[in-house]
Amino acid sequence: MKLVRWGESGAEKPGLIDQGGAIRDLSGVIRDIASPTLAADLIGNLRGIDPATLPEVPAGTRLGPCVGQVRNFIAIGLNYADHAAETGSPIPAEPIIFNKAPSCIVGPNDDVILPKGSAKTDWEVELAIVIGKRASYVHANEALDYVAGYCVCHDVSEREFQLERGGTWTKGKGCPTFGPLGPWLVTPDEVADVQDLGMWLDVNGERMQTGSTRTMIFDCRQIVSYLSHFMLLEPGDVITTGTPPGVGMGMKPARFLKAGDVVTLGIEGLGEQRQTIVAFDDWTAKVSAGQPTN
Amino acid sequence: MKLVRWGESGAEKPGLIDQGGAIRDLSGVIRDIASPTLAADLIGNLRGIDPATLPEVPAGTRLGPCVGQVRNFIAIGLNYADHAAETGSPIPAEPIIFNKAPSCIVGPNDDVILPKGSAKTDWEVELAIVIGKRASYVHANEALDYVAGYCVCHDVSEREFQLERGGTWTKGKGCPTFGPLGPWLVTPDEVADVQDLGMWLDVNGERMQTGSTRTMIFDCRQIVSYLSHFMLLEPGDVITTGTPPGVGMGMKPARFLKAGDVVTLGIEGLGEQRQTIVAFDDWTAKVSAGQPTN
Repeated sequence: MKLVRWGESGAEKPGLIDQGGAIRDLSGVIRDIASPTLAADLIGNLRGIDPATLPEVPAGTRLGPCVGQVRNFIAIGLNYADHAAETGSPIPAEPIIFNKAPSCIVGPNDDVILPKGSAKTDWEVELAIVIGKRASYVHANEALDYVAGYCVCHDVSEREFQLERGGTWTKGKGCPTFGPLGPWLVTPDEVADVQDLGMWLDVNGERMQTGSTRTMIFDCRQIVSYLSHFMLLEPGDVITTGTPPGVGMGMKPARFLKAGDVVTLGIEGLGEQRQTIVAFDDWTAKVSAGQPTN
Repeated sequence: MKLVRWGESGAEKPGLIDQGGAIRDLSGVIRDIASPTLAADLIGNLRGIDPATLPEVPAGTRLGPCVGQVRNFIAIGLNYADHAAETGSPIPAEPIIFNKAPSCIVGPNDDVILPKGSAKTDWEVELAIVIGKRASYVHANEALDYVAGYCVCHDVSEREFQLERGGTWTKGKGCPTFGPLGPWLVTPDEVADVQDLGMWLDVNGERMQTGSTRTMIFDCRQIVSYLSHFMLLEPGDVITTGTPPGVGMGMKPARFLKAGDVVTLGIEGLGEQRQTIVAFDDWTAKVSAGQPTN
């Protein structure tokens, strides 16, 4: 299944994608695609549903983030061998963990705002894991039993905030709109091999990142198992698993996002995202005028 | 006001502490003390209530964490001048930010579990700020307008996981039960000067930490303002603001918690906590037997 959340920001309804690619409205069946419903075996409960019996949502409706009410938005750093090489970093001996503020999560095609004072906002296409069952001290062999599904995550990153402001990476990873998630939450049965998915990212149509989940240093089962030894993973937690080569920081000279740029990105079988980069002042003007920002 | 959440773990109800120190049941008035109710001006809505009209909760009832459904549990590192000196670290030029997994939050008097394989579990008494209104790019002078209240936080820390396992501090800060919060969420009107509160922590009755919020390097208003420039702060977010001197890691020789230890801690005007330290195997035995763990 490909699950979505559609409608206005903050008031998204659940849906699924039918065979023809249309959104079908699930709001008569479940309340949301979020921690409480995931914990109550959402995926199992939807198995018997015939999409043709569900109301069709008009084409062009906005998509929200494919999972709601995320509490723990965890990220793995330097998890692609070829990306670690590009940044001049050694291969990590253990997964590097940091957090993105859950308030940075937006829909897959929403605007991305350049933070106030930002000169180094950068792109990162990533595969994200959505947890479906509480996981504590699980073995790698059984770790994927705790996964509700996978989605595309754009791990937008402000490199000065991340690397030049002291302490951990948190400062450059959780700015508002820095976490587009979706379009779809794809259930594991639809993903033949999560460790063999092509991925790409373009800026203004120019290919910047090309990679595959094959070159992850720690694969999805290792990541879920490893994290579960340091914290209780809860349904609805999102783990974004690192980026392949081709980020702006790694270019010579380095290249960063500017207002008006359009970023498109995707992962094989998980769909595509498209964001327009917006200046901070334009965003605050919209907020002041009471206009929708995303 | 002193607000509490009382009852069984995961099913806590809201309450407040009356003049005589008894818990009064607020569940007929509000649903919970958590993000949605805080966002709807919880504190303002409760102002007119006469506690004597509310049902009294039996003495000895378990207290849960004083705020529920926390999404972003942020911590400030090395924020006391005297603690930075004790660890041999320079005074940070800017606040150091890291995250505690929200799933580590427990009640103020619940057991604290030593994680599997832990040899270096350490204590840290801290003042925590609970956000009451969405905050984005707020100036320090107005930052406290966004605070719903203050509480005691025990920032339990596994030093090997934190410092010797690669990457950021996250690994040693979010293990299950590593975030006792409470007993009370104390509203700002009851705190004469949040930057002049005595604080202490005992292990088995022996005084380990003595400090005051006076020696914070970055005070509460600077912290809220600073964070709001890197992320959107949401109602119900919790920021724990660092610890004064006297942690186990700083002793010569270093000293850490072991099963059976009892930790008591408190902050002037914000109440006290008491935790028994429990071995991992004892905890898993309880879980297997279906017994309440906290």
